Amino acid sequence: MTNANEYPTHATTRRAALGGAVALASAGLALGIPAAANAADTADTAEGAGHGPRIGILLYDGFSLLDPTGPAEVLSRLPGATVTMIAERRGPVRTDTGDAAVMADRSLAEAGRLDVVLVPGAGNRGTLAAMENPAILGFLRKAHRHTRWTTSVCTGSLILGAAGLLRERATTYWASKDYLESTFGVTYVPERYVHDGKVITAAGVSAGIDMALYLAARLTDETTARAVQLAVEYDPHPPFDSGNAAQAGPELKALALRLLEESQR
Amino acid sequence: MTNANEYPTHATTRRAALGGAVALASAGLALGIPAAANAADTADTAEGAGHGPRIGILLYDGFSLLDPTGPAEVLSRLPGATVTMIAERRGPVRTDTGDAAVMADRSLAEAGRLDVVLVPGAGNRGTLAAMENPAILGFLRKAHRHTRWTTSVCTGSLILGAAGLLRERATTYWASKDYLESTFGVTYVPERYVHDGKVITAAGVSAGIDMALYLAARLTDETTARAVQLAVEYDPHPPFDSGNAAQAGPELKALALRLLEESQR
Repeated sequence: MTNANEYPTHATTRRAALGGAVALASAGLALGIPAAANAADTADTAEGAGHGPRIGILLYDGFSLLDPTGPAEVLSRLPGATVTMIAERRGPVRTDTGDAAVMADRSLAEAGRLDVVLVPGAGNRGTLAAMENPAILGFLRKAHRHTRWTTSVCTGSLILGAAGLLRERATTYWASKDYLESTFGVTYVPERYVHDGKVITAAGVSAGIDMALYLAARLTDETTARAVQLAVEYDPHPPFDSGNAAQAGPELKALALRLLEESQR
Repeated sequence: MTNANEYPTHATTRRAALGGAVALASAGLALGIPAAANAADTADTAEGAGHGPRIGILLYDGFSLLDPTGPAEVLSRLPGATVTMIAERRGPVRTDTGDAAVMADRSLAEAGRLDVVLVPGAGNRGTLAAMENPAILGFLRKAHRHTRWTTSVCTGSLILGAAGLLRERATTYWASKDYLESTFGVTYVPERYVHDGKVITAAGVSAGIDMALYLAARLTDETTARAVQLAVEYDPHPPFDSGNAAQAGPELKALALRLLEESQR
């Protein structure tokens, strides 16, 4: 349908470098990204997949897309880690905007024992529904008995609160801080992540990435966590400096909440 | 299975605030996150869903999870925006680690006209396969004729290069810079995102979030983009400062690449 001649693809140059199966095998070096290790090479080492931390991420209808996927990107790079998307039922779970769905590969009953559980946040409706869902709350309480770390992003901390798992200090989405304090009697701490006992709560949406790097260091060591940061090239330079609610004026806050409202299905 | 009495859920307090359908309707204010607008309220305004930019995100086997989901989180909050996950075929598309899958809601043939197309990066194998996939390259060339912005994250710029869509300057994953320059004859620019004509390329993985905010401002205005940044509480404070390859030593780089290699399926 498209005339390839319209586009200078540099195909000749590329094919000269990647001219066949043998060249493809070495192309990983050319791209700079090594090819996946042969499973046989890692299966018998302590660092093979499945020998590291078992991390379960809870999905539920109306979650915010970045809340689970940012931490999953970071944590899935830890040696031997397994990251599993878990929901009440297997299958696609749609986000608050309706624009995307992530597959849950295991049901709550299939989750097995987890070293880390992570609860993402959601829009208002999704958060409230999860807070009232006895299957989700029961799963979290049961998982929490055995986790090394029980974690949340954004309004996920309200769901931990509904399950009775918050302690004295926590964070949440900036607009939910009063709700957090008045409902669960915990002190809201305006940090990117707050560590209290084995519970780590992260602030809104993107804060899950910062929290995941902190968690990565606790699960492994600082050098490994720093390498993961480099692996995902996390050297953030947003074009604006408007992400901190404590520094935002009332008009920008109102606009942010209106955009959230209008983007939800 | 769990005795709820073991856990102080503050249920009484919460139910006092959220004690029925009427209270639920106002609970959005309590959580601080407004409820979704009634569709009838927005359907006749220019800001209703579907009246803003049409953003298509390409998924393909082995993509890196954060590459499409970070920008999708940001861009889906723009007034009236639609974000659609697109792949060769509808259905789940699995990441490089195998740990997660995102649903493609439309096939390439169903994508329709797009204002923005975004190509995520992948591990070595996934990137090379996409660069050799005529259906993907043809889709990108055709979409590019009508886009306002053609964009990529991480090694997605190599796929744009294979489609012949790069211009003179671009960025990519830090470890792929030599491949980018030697294969496509473009100048690698070590910035979070590089804007050349209507092509915007972002650096590795997490850089897509910074690029999406820049793009948000171009699609709307700076105030709206700043409000989106606040909506996703993007005030990054990673616990370490190891995300910049230009400042990383050879040992950390080698470890980062080894973690990537071992995490791929």
